[in-house]
Amino acid sequence: MSDNTPAAAGKAEGEAGEKFQKVQHNFCQLTVDDEQLQLAAAYVSDAQYNRNIHFETSPQAIRFYKLYNHWSTQGITYFFVLVDLLLALFEDPAVYLLPIWITSTVEFICLLMFAVRLLHFSKITPAKVLWKDAKNICVIVSILLTLMDMIVYLTLTETGYFVVRWSRVLRPLFCINFTESRQLRRAFRNIRNTLPEIAYVFVLFMFSVAVFSLMALKLFAKRKLTTGEGAPYFNNYLDIFFNLYVLVTTANSPDVMMPAYEVSWAYSIFFVIFIIVNTYVFMSLFLAVVYNDYKKHLKNEVRKLVYMKHRKMIEAFDILKVKHGSEFVILDSRWRQLVKLVAPEIPSSHRELLWRVSDDEQKGFVGRECFIRLADLLNIQVVQMKERVHPLEKCWPNMYNSAASQFIRRIVKHQGFRYTYDAIIVINAIFIGGDESNPLISKAEWIFLTLYLVEILLKLFAYEPRAFFATSQFWNWFDTLIIIAALLGTIVNTTIRSSGGYSSQQVLDIVFILRVLRLIRIIDSFQRFRVLLNTLINLIPTMLTYAGLIVVVYYIFAIVGMEAFKGRIRFYGANSSDPAAKYCGNPALKGSQFAALRYCKNNFNNIVSAFILLIELTVVNQWHVLATGFVKVTHLTARIFFVIFHIMVVIILINIFVAFVLEAFFVEYSLARSAVETAVEKKIQELGMGDCTDQPAGNLVEVLENDLGNTDDTDLKSRLRFRIASIRYKTVDTLLQHMFEEELKPEDEIPTLEEIDNLSPDDYTPKQPTFDSFA
Amino acid sequence: MSDNTPAAAGKAEGEAGEKFQKVQHNFCQLTVDDEQLQLAAAYVSDAQYNRNIHFETSPQAIRFYKLYNHWSTQGITYFFVLVDLLLALFEDPAVYLLPIWITSTVEFICLLMFAVRLLHFSKITPAKVLWKDAKNICVIVSILLTLMDMIVYLTLTETGYFVVRWSRVLRPLFCINFTESRQLRRAFRNIRNTLPEIAYVFVLFMFSVAVFSLMALKLFAKRKLTTGEGAPYFNNYLDIFFNLYVLVTTANSPDVMMPAYEVSWAYSIFFVIFIIVNTYVFMSLFLAVVYNDYKKHLKNEVRKLVYMKHRKMIEAFDILKVKHGSEFVILDSRWRQLVKLVAPEIPSSHRELLWRVSDDEQKGFVGRECFIRLADLLNIQVVQMKERVHPLEKCWPNMYNSAASQFIRRIVKHQGFRYTYDAIIVINAIFIGGDESNPLISKAEWIFLTLYLVEILLKLFAYEPRAFFATSQFWNWFDTLIIIAALLGTIVNTTIRSSGGYSSQQVLDIVFILRVLRLIRIIDSFQRFRVLLNTLINLIPTMLTYAGLIVVVYYIFAIVGMEAFKGRIRFYGANSSDPAAKYCGNPALKGSQFAALRYCKNNFNNIVSAFILLIELTVVNQWHVLATGFVKVTHLTARIFFVIFHIMVVIILINIFVAFVLEAFFVEYSLARSAVETAVEKKIQELGMGDCTDQPAGNLVEVLENDLGNTDDTDLKSRLRFRIASIRYKTVDTLLQHMFEEELKPEDEIPTLEEIDNLSPDDYTPKQPTFDSFA
Repeated sequence: MSDNTPAAAGKAEGEAGEKFQKVQHNFCQLTVDDEQLQLAAAYVSDAQYNRNIHFETSPQAIRFYKLYNHWSTQGITYFFVLVDLLLALFEDPAVYLLPIWITSTVEFICLLMFAVRLLHFSKITPAKVLWKDAKNICVIVSILLTLMDMIVYLTLTETGYFVVRWSRVLRPLFCINFTESRQLRRAFRNIRNTLPEIAYVFVLFMFSVAVFSLMALKLFAKRKLTTGEGAPYFNNYLDIFFNLYVLVTTANSPDVMMPAYEVSWAYSIFFVIFIIVNTYVFMSLFLAVVYNDYKKHLKNEVRKLVYMKHRKMIEAFDILKVKHGSEFVILDSRWRQLVKLVAPEIPSSHRELLWRVSDDEQKGFVGRECFIRLADLLNIQVVQMKERVHPLEKCWPNMYNSAASQFIRRIVKHQGFRYTYDAIIVINAIFIGGDESNPLISKAEWIFLTLYLVEILLKLFAYEPRAFFATSQFWNWFDTLIIIAALLGTIVNTTIRSSGGYSSQQVLDIVFILRVLRLIRIIDSFQRFRVLLNTLINLIPTMLTYAGLIVVVYYIFAIVGMEAFKGRIRFYGANSSDPAAKYCGNPALKGSQFAALRYCKNNFNNIVSAFILLIELTVVNQWHVLATGFVKVTHLTARIFFVIFHIMVVIILINIFVAFVLEAFFVEYSLARSAVETAVEKKIQELGMGDCTDQPAGNLVEVLENDLGNTDDTDLKSRLRFRIASIRYKTVDTLLQHMFEEELKPEDEIPTLEEIDNLSPDDYTPKQPTFDSFA
Repeated sequence: MSDNTPAAAGKAEGEAGEKFQKVQHNFCQLTVDDEQLQLAAAYVSDAQYNRNIHFETSPQAIRFYKLYNHWSTQGITYFFVLVDLLLALFEDPAVYLLPIWITSTVEFICLLMFAVRLLHFSKITPAKVLWKDAKNICVIVSILLTLMDMIVYLTLTETGYFVVRWSRVLRPLFCINFTESRQLRRAFRNIRNTLPEIAYVFVLFMFSVAVFSLMALKLFAKRKLTTGEGAPYFNNYLDIFFNLYVLVTTANSPDVMMPAYEVSWAYSIFFVIFIIVNTYVFMSLFLAVVYNDYKKHLKNEVRKLVYMKHRKMIEAFDILKVKHGSEFVILDSRWRQLVKLVAPEIPSSHRELLWRVSDDEQKGFVGRECFIRLADLLNIQVVQMKERVHPLEKCWPNMYNSAASQFIRRIVKHQGFRYTYDAIIVINAIFIGGDESNPLISKAEWIFLTLYLVEILLKLFAYEPRAFFATSQFWNWFDTLIIIAALLGTIVNTTIRSSGGYSSQQVLDIVFILRVLRLIRIIDSFQRFRVLLNTLINLIPTMLTYAGLIVVVYYIFAIVGMEAFKGRIRFYGANSSDPAAKYCGNPALKGSQFAALRYCKNNFNNIVSAFILLIELTVVNQWHVLATGFVKVTHLTARIFFVIFHIMVVIILINIFVAFVLEAFFVEYSLARSAVETAVEKKIQELGMGDCTDQPAGNLVEVLENDLGNTDDTDLKSRLRFRIASIRYKTVDTLLQHMFEEELKPEDEIPTLEEIDNLSPDDYTPKQPTFDSFA
């Protein structure tokens, strides 16, 4: 990797002395040409975004690499992954059936694009690495299998055979295996690694249910009890086992207990003990073990990530370094060139801030340790607040500064203004709850709309518009968008009604939802709520990663479910008079709870229905009724399918999801509690002060601002104020790094790239509890 | 507190010099008389059991204090608390109704005993402390209120008025407020302290449900849809709110969605978003905040506990200390006297081990730091393993050592013996599953019983009986008890059947359960399962604390529920032909889901039914059906009652319970994974090595054993081996201390007793995440 480091720098490392220094200095500045700067920028960019790609260091490969990471090529790949997944909407069983030649052609184009993407990647990475990576092999195999399946399917359906399009379950693999969805792949890998270790707990849990089932068989089989539906109660071991498994999920409590409880209250003891042991203790144990192992693997991944980041930064450092005294450093000019190349979107003033944070003592160069931190520094969202002049003031200064105008502006900025509008929102809520056909209420809606519009206009008058609509001003955006949308919706609705005499239900629904959403604004008036909500918003990227994971798993189950159950259960419309509607078009369901509860629309007849059904199964309640419905239709297949889904999604995925969100929340919330506004400012301080400096803590950002005012850069001379947007993490990686920060102690030696790849979670000595902490 | 410290020692603290040492030495040995030793022992005992009692230091008070902490007086108090609680079984609405004069008399006796207990306590503690403590005031007020209520009730029921026995809800207060249930009180106090802080999240959550309800009203009210039962769907704001609150608990999913979903799949989006936002995100957030705050308060409590322990040990040290050189120490003779007094049940050899751990360098005295650790040392369960001679070998050495006997013993100790019995257990399981009426199977049962008996006898032959039945041998005890009970049960059952011709169902049920329980033994054969199970067993004391808490809360709700709903819903027996049985004896329930699902036995007609119903509500599923059943009967009362129960028990209590058990499990499991067998041995090592010594780690227990062999003590001359029973925590306190160990760094100054009492969680500077840990 580091063969490309300037030979001179390598030589210089051996030698050291005063007399070489000047020669060395000049030499290095000449050596680093544009190509090497590009290479260093690629390394830094990788470190910033935590990309784990081994790329070749030839100039051509780097150009290809830049293109590969460009938003356009990534966007195209995402687009085709999405198209490939959405094809399920148009294939039999379809929501809107398209002719098979259209879907096949589209799928073929998608596969082609995936192949091109892979080809592009092969130009970047050494062949040896390419063929060692499981994800590339996986993509190639998936493409080939899909092509094969398409050919077989097209040929056989032409000749009239019934064939299963099994390759459709491979589609999520493209979603997982393209480099862009790193988070998703990592989550999958972690779960896969966790599985063998939790098998023991699962066996123990199943053993427990099996033993209880045997006990239930001995206790109840002879009593010849009947369930509420009149079926025999607990007379068959497998049925008991299924029922008790369902009871673990609490879905059939207390119904499953009632027949025995009616005979004697003593039998309820059996069920209570069962629930305590299996639902509360075993499921908790299960969650603990699953999450414990998951975290172990995740920590290993994060450690790899951090090492990789440091390694890449060191590679970049080695390219750009210059000998200064006895140590190697990077000079400010080169540092600025590099940052300009890595993050061209950062304004020069912000770059200057970063430089000041890095070079805290204004020495004109940064050392290796400080340089490594650049990757983290680039990830901090610093908002540059310029004291801008209001456009109205610019155009009509006299009018804007008149007494009346100043009075209005004072009113708008007053607390009372906010309270007034809070009161209006509350009154509005009552009106929304009222009956729409009452003319008073529909008139009031216009008044409220006007009031909200006036509020926004007044605020735009009082505050500088660009500051008002800054990216960090979530609530201003929210307000304005909701109000404008509601205004448009109401106008459209009124127009339609007055012209055609009827109102469009869809438009009306949207207008209603927008009106209600407006009420949420009231939260912003309470500091505590705002903190909570900000914390939640910060967790969204993390939650989306897991949501992606769950969607992928849903997709696989939906495809399998559609192939297995399509058309078995039918829905005849809400008010169908067809007698078959009573039993969902399948005589096997006559008299079943499934049909009685009107669950006919919960079927696998297209991918939308399938997804909704799978969501219902994830929520768990009544899943046994849904499962039993399908069991009546397809027997064992359904039982296996539903139980596997429950184990995979509810027990493993959702458990990990909830546990992870909780842990992330603890990290977030503890930060939020201690110092919401100053957290990232502190980060800058501490990043800048860690090992390189020992300046006492203080408002560094403020200090810097004053410093910057004195520099020559004219752009900086204008009054600048830096504010950290909020403690928002740009990436999930940052959050992860944060979570394990304390346990990932800095180590002197950062392993090489090959060593990093082979790290295993067992390399860690588990943290021993210290027994001597109580003196 | 420390005024009683010998004046001479206090004087000596000021002076320091070689010439005083000898005088000092002799003087101190004379000073500490029996009374002061008793006082020191009281302090150490308090520290060992983490008692937080301010007792007076007069000899009489200490004698009273010893009696107060004696198992007999504690046992009596527990007994009367239990009797007081169980009275609910015999009072109207009763399981077995007793005349009111009996229950009133018993209750009066209970109250008398509580008063005596409090009087006893007042003899121990200074009056000022007594009257400042909320729990004592609470007990006095409860006693007075109960007496008042009893008088009013007895008078008014005599004159025919209907009166509510409201003071019954006070009974759990006795359970909580007696010193013995320290854990319970702490858990309650923590939850109470947590409540105000979580109010914000709760309001935010309710606001979210309210906004969604408003949206649902606008979307669905006009569509005039009907539910599965034919009732109007989503047409009333309060009903919608209740239904959506139930949906947060997932109890009415997917039924609540079906009518809308049948109209259009697009409406399911509303419900899916609702569930994601409220069930997954908000409930997680809620759990996170609840648990976060709970832990904060718990940590404060544990810190108080540790400080208190250290403070009490220091008090004891100050009484017993002797000047040695420039520091104060405790000499071995006095240390031994003290330990003998504090823990008379510890054998002298074990005491010697503790002394060696304390005085690691065999200096003949211990310093203050080492002495403080004695409280933790006393809590470690060390099992003394003597190499005993088998009783058979003692009586008939020739026979026991004959070739045949040795052969049998070798077989029993062989792995194959265990595998054979594992196979037998599996075969047995199949037979148990078979039909009992088949004579082959009922005969086989005798064979299996014989086989198991033979196994136990063989093991008793091969292993020394006292070692086989050591307290740490859980599985041996389990096996033997189960087999003997099953044998007795089977014999009783056979006798009854052969004599009377019929079999007793109760006996048979127990026999069946015992037979199935036997199968659990197979777990012991797998190392991984054993580790998991041991971890679970270790958590039992902790779980019992919370179980106690939940029972107390149940009791209060059960009493209130019985007063509010008794007799409203009736159960007419499993096969009643009474037409009222169809609607639980209440016309309001005609056609309701409650009656249709045969839930009539879920009522508040006695305390057992009430408890079972509350457990069902805790499991959550179908709680809305149960609630709606009672709502139909008593309207608003029921709705408020059920929702408050849900918030209190399910959202707060169970959340904390599960979160705490998970956390405790993480602590336990990480230990179990790293070194199950050696964990506590390490603890001894580390306790012995912390600050006082720097001997390299090694099997200290082994070393000690050899050392002890050379001492004069004849008891120690016999070959002794110490083994740590397992990593079992004697008390919940030890686990708690362990959990927060890393965060409770030793501090130089231990606060005084008064300061400890006033510590608040906000005294801590929250642990700041370190941003510079990535170098």
